[in-house]
Formats: sequence, structure tokens, C-alpha cells
Amino acid sequence: MNLDPAPLDAADPLAAHRDRFVGAETPLVYLDGNSLGRPLRSTAERISGFVTGEWGGRLIRGWDERWFELPLALGDRLAAVALGAGPGQTAVADSTTVLLYKLVRAAVAAHPGRTEVVIDRDNFPTDRYVVEGVAHECGLTIRWLDVDPVGGVTPEALAAEVGSATALVVVSHVAYKSGWMADVEALTRITHDAGAWILVDLCHSSGAVEVELDAWQVDLAVGCTYKYLNGGPGSPAFGFVARRHLEAGAFRQPVQGWMGAADPFAMGPAYEPAPGIRQLISGTPPVLGMLALEDMVGLLEEVGIAAVRAKSVSLTSYALDLVDRDLPEVEVVSPRDPALRGGHVTLAHPRMREVTAALWERDVLPDFRNPDGLRIGLSPLSTSFAEVAQGVAAIGEALRR
Amino acid sequence: MNLDPAPLDAADPLAAHRDRFVGAETPLVYLDGNSLGRPLRSTAERISGFVTGEWGGRLIRGWDERWFELPLALGDRLAAVALGAGPGQTAVADSTTVLLYKLVRAAVAAHPGRTEVVIDRDNFPTDRYVVEGVAHECGLTIRWLDVDPVGGVTPEALAAEVGSATALVVVSHVAYKSGWMADVEALTRITHDAGAWILVDLCHSSGAVEVELDAWQVDLAVGCTYKYLNGGPGSPAFGFVARRHLEAGAFRQPVQGWMGAADPFAMGPAYEPAPGIRQLISGTPPVLGMLALEDMVGLLEEVGIAAVRAKSVSLTSYALDLVDRDLPEVEVVSPRDPALRGGHVTLAHPRMREVTAALWERDVLPDFRNPDGLRIGLSPLSTSFAEVAQGVAAIGEALRR
Repeated sequence: MNLDPAPLDAADPLAAHRDRFVGAETPLVYLDGNSLGRPLRSTAERISGFVTGEWGGRLIRGWDERWFELPLALGDRLAAVALGAGPGQTAVADSTTVLLYKLVRAAVAAHPGRTEVVIDRDNFPTDRYVVEGVAHECGLTIRWLDVDPVGGVTPEALAAEVGSATALVVVSHVAYKSGWMADVEALTRITHDAGAWILVDLCHSSGAVEVELDAWQVDLAVGCTYKYLNGGPGSPAFGFVARRHLEAGAFRQPVQGWMGAADPFAMGPAYEPAPGIRQLISGTPPVLGMLALEDMVGLLEEVGIAAVRAKSVSLTSYALDLVDRDLPEVEVVSPRDPALRGGHVTLAHPRMREVTAALWERDVLPDFRNPDGLRIGLSPLSTSFAEVAQGVAAIGEALRR
Repeated sequence: MNLDPAPLDAADPLAAHRDRFVGAETPLVYLDGNSLGRPLRSTAERISGFVTGEWGGRLIRGWDERWFELPLALGDRLAAVALGAGPGQTAVADSTTVLLYKLVRAAVAAHPGRTEVVIDRDNFPTDRYVVEGVAHECGLTIRWLDVDPVGGVTPEALAAEVGSATALVVVSHVAYKSGWMADVEALTRITHDAGAWILVDLCHSSGAVEVELDAWQVDLAVGCTYKYLNGGPGSPAFGFVARRHLEAGAFRQPVQGWMGAADPFAMGPAYEPAPGIRQLISGTPPVLGMLALEDMVGLLEEVGIAAVRAKSVSLTSYALDLVDRDLPEVEVVSPRDPALRGGHVTLAHPRMREVTAALWERDVLPDFRNPDGLRIGLSPLSTSFAEVAQGVAAIGEALRR
């Protein structure tokens, strides 16, 4: 099999976008775009321009002029380009963990009398920790789903656990370890048949794979913006609440803050939540932290998520082809079928912890996941096929040294 | 009375620092440093350098190298220079509202059987809204303190309300409307005599007045960093938990996240809180949002908070002298005694809403607070006496037009 990366890069319609990212010109091989995406070159200049211009020049007037609306305006743009969601349902705010807490609590409150939350044991730690904490404080029972190491939550597994006691199902669209992509539409249908809500964690999917929150009828969603959305280290998260729940008044989150109040500057005697998705906001929105995300959303609007997903599939398929040919000693613990796979692939081997450390020494940066997983996260817009080939070759060398 | 600002600026030992802030060279008169501080000039360059260097160059390695510790390392520096607190008690994280929620919940959990929270009706809305929300979810009663419009929470008023049912007292060090500065040491003693904890909101004091959290024996504190700490619009907040509570295991906050877990990268099956103040952290720390704050903490380390407070007192006293001489039609609704006053003064007049709007048109920027307050917030390091004189003169002109 000819696995020369050069013709693949030459034929890649998105290849030219790679140069728009900082560091594309260096020999560093970056295989961890699903932990922290590279910055766009335009972001550096734009942020310093923001400091001297919009912040330093407009000062407090910036809130009236743009910043107050930014969490919802940017949420709407993100929803349109990457989440398959109409306007008025998405806010950029807080961290993934804090938004998970608000959404889990709101879902439980919306289902009085229901006493169970369903979540899988392989879900990302913060999702599990939040659910554990809320279950403890609200006296709920957690029904833990066991999943296959390569797989994730299947419709069959979920159907066996949800029922009339279920308040909420929490699931990741793309599993952080295996990269397994759940059939969220089917999971949502099963959840709704049981009369519960579903909360989908999009951390490992938004910006890399197609998401259709409205079409799938998802109730709640959350995701981070520092992976495939290139928002920078610790950039704010986003939260989604389906319009039908907002309009029915069925949604109420517990962290009541002035920026989510109906009239923040009335500074009235009692909290009255703002109508719509603004209620999800608690404190002052992190404006500086949204600027890099704003740049990346602009690039996604230009390119379209379908093209991004097509390249993502090509990159991960190419990586697996190389692994199959050159790394017989590793086990692929990600789905083979691209339709069941997100933007990363994970390779298992008992020595992966030390292999990852050795690769970092050589400026080849994959991620390690306990206990034996080396994770290759391929940002579609900033990763070349040549980079993938170099990375897989370096993994082979490190394994054999 | 000679109120010429020129000799005051000439004699000001901090005058030279003003040029280090963006916009110091423009004719704009900025009287709202207690809503959003000006950026340091060094911040613009540093943030763009961060994007291309630390983020773009180090990528995911930045977490091991610096970012993972940054919320606590920066918290310690802030605590030492501006909060009068030893290390290991302060974290930079989230927003003021989210930290208030965590701290109020933790205080209630630490006092089982106690059913009341004490807070004043004039406290900042988000403090009241959070307390209302927690009281509702935990079945607590709120004891509301009424305060004088010019004043704030006095030891006498507090002593009349705390008792054996009190779990927590929530108080602002400097009141957001009047600028009244509470005697936190006395309030803390009264609170402790009743067996409760005190939570002090430092939003309007940190960076402008001296704070002595350790000496005063404060239990919990929170504050924002975008006012006198010049962190930028929506920069993260800080939270303080007294070491004795952390060491006794008496503190447990409800938003359990992976970044506050004992071993975040073990990604274990159940949440185990990290020892110490790290537990206060929930999600991924907002690194980009901490950089401007880091610059300002550096400047405070250079200057010292005592010198900052001395200039703050001079600026507010000068503003009141000008008001007394030139604006007989307004009512001063801030304390006359500088020992009872923070970094801002508020002037009341029935026409202040339209006066504020007219001033904004002329690039003179005070703040308006419902229903009739014009608030003059004077950042000690970026405000000149000349700026104060121009501002008060402009208020007079607008009132008479």
C-alpha cells in the first residue's frame, strides 16, 4: 500500500489553511489538537489590538457596545456553524465542569419524583464527578453503564437502563479515550421514550465532527472550546438548552447571578431569571477568553464543518493505515468504521507512558491516557498528512528503542 | 481653598505609573476604574507574545510547565500583595458569582443544623441572588440587615442578628454603592462568637485598600480582578479559604471537577478532592484571562498596597473637596471619614441618570447606579488629580445644562 503523504497533502482542499496557525512552519509534530488546539496567527494580533483598542479605548462602554451580548451572539454563531442548532439556545460561559453542574442540576429539578441519573463508567472524569456530586446532594441514584473499551454507549445498553425513574442521561458524543462516536439521535429517542432528558458532552466533537442538536432533539449539551475550536488554554465552555425547555419555563439553573438576571442593572431586590438562554450565565462573561474562539468560528464559517469532518476522517483513516502497516505491536482501541469514530485514535501498548515521554523529548506531541493509551488527536485544519506520517514513524521508533 | 490639581500631581509619588496604562495620553476622563480598570501597556504585548510563544509554541506542554499551577501561584502572589493572606489559601478561578456559590454552599455544609444566613439588603445583587438561591435549595432562612444609604453593615447591626442558628454572614468589605468600608475585623469577631463563618466580598476593595484576611481571621473571601486589579473584561475571580478550615477538612465545595481532584490525570473512578485550596477549582483554569492580572500583581508588588491606599484616600478626599466647593446641588452619599471609605465616592441627584449619559457623550466616564447615584471610581495607579478636577467640573456643567 502506498502511504506517501505528499500526494494526500497536495490533493487536500483544506491544506492551505494550515499556514494560518501558529507553529505550522516549525518541525514540531502536533498530535494533541484534541487537548489544546493551536492558535490562529490572526488571534495574537487581534488580542493585542483588543487590549489597546476595545478594552483600553472603549473601557466600560464596551459592555453596552458589544461585550454584554457577546456570550449569546458568539454562542449563536458557534451553534449555527458547529452544533446544528438554531439561535437563542447556546451561551459561551464558565468552564465545562461548571456548566455541567448547572445543566445536571436543572435537569434533575425539571423531573421531580425521578431519582436516577444514567452515565457510563468510561465517561470523562469531570462528567462523572459532577454527576456523583449532584447525586449525593440531591439524593439520587446513579445507574452506571459499562462500555466496551473500544466502544461507547450503544442504544441497546442505554435502553436496558433507562426507565420511569430516570431524570437524566449523560453521554459523551465522542468518547475521550477511544474516540467512539455515539449515535446521539438514537440515544435521545430512547431517553425521551422514558420521559427523561439527555445531556450530551461535545468536548471531543465540536469543531471536528458534524453535530445536529436540533435535528436529534437533544435537550442539553455542553462542550469546551480549547480543543478543535482553538479558543486557547482554559477558554470558556459553551452550554446549550433546547428552545422548547426555555420557552416552557422548564429550565432553571442553580447558580443565580446578576448577569443572568432579567434586568442586570436594575439591581433589584430579588433574582428574576432572564428569559431564554441568558439565564445560563451567572457572573461577568469572560470577554478576553472568547476572542480566539471568535476567530476560529470565523474560519469554520468560511470552510464549513462538512469539509472539516471529511478531512478529519481522512486523517484518522490514514493514521490507522500507517499503524496497521508499521506498528504491528500496538493495539488499536478506536473504532475501525469512520462513521463510529471522532477526530482521534488511540493506540494501546504496555509501554505507552514512557513512549509518550520519549516522543515529547523529540518534539512529537501525542497525549497519554491511563493506563496504556497513546492518543493521536488530529485537528483537521492545522494538521497535514506529512505530520501524521512523521508522528506514526516516531511512535514506531520510540517503541523499538 | 486652593484646589489646583497641578501641585498635587507634582507631589504624587505614584504619578509616573499612570503612563504605564493604555489611554493615559488621551483626553478621556475615566472615573469608572471600579467597574473596569484600564489595561497596562505591557499587557497588550505580553498577551500577543503568550499566543505565539507560550500557547502556540509550548502547546499542551504549557500545562505541565506553568499553567496547571498558575491559579494557585498567582493566587498566592495576589494574597501576599493585596489580601494580607499567607500562601495556600487563594485560587484564581471562575467568576465572582460561581465562587460565591461554591463558598456559600461550603459554609452551609460546614454548619449542619444551623439554618440561617445573614446578609444586608444593600449588598451587591449577585451576592444576594446567590444567597437567595442557596437558601431556597438548602431550606435556609435569610436574615436581611437594613443599612443606612451612606453606611453599611455595622458591628451593632450584625450583633443584633447573628446567633446560634447562623451558619454564615455574607458582607462586602467596601459597599458597591456608597463606598462604605466595613470593619471586617469586628464583624468577624462577632460572627465567630456566634459560632458561624464570615464570607467577605472584596470586589470593591482588593487592589485599592488594605485587606488583612489572616489578621482579621476571615473564613472565606471572594473578589473580582477586573476593577482595581486591571485583569480585563470578565477576567477570572479569586477565592480565599482560611487554612484552618482546609486543614481541618471542614471545607467541601459542591462543583466537583477534574482540575480540583486529588490526581486529575489518574482519571479515577470516583472524585477525591485535592488537599488544600486546589479543591476550589472545578474546570480547566482560564489561563489567557489571568495574564493581565499577573501584570497588575507585578506592579502592585513594586509599589506596595500602602502607597496605593494613601493615593486612593487623597484622590477621593480631593474629589469630595471639589464637590463641596463646586457642586452644592448634589448629595454626597459616601462616608466623609476616609477611614470608613473605599476607593470610590457616590453623588446623588435626581438627574444623575441623564447627567451620566451626557458625560459619556463628552468622553467623561463615571458610572450610574440606580436610582439616582453617580459613582466616581478612582483607580489609584491610573488616575491623576487633574483627571478628577476635570471630571467634577464636567459633572457640574452637565448638571447645570
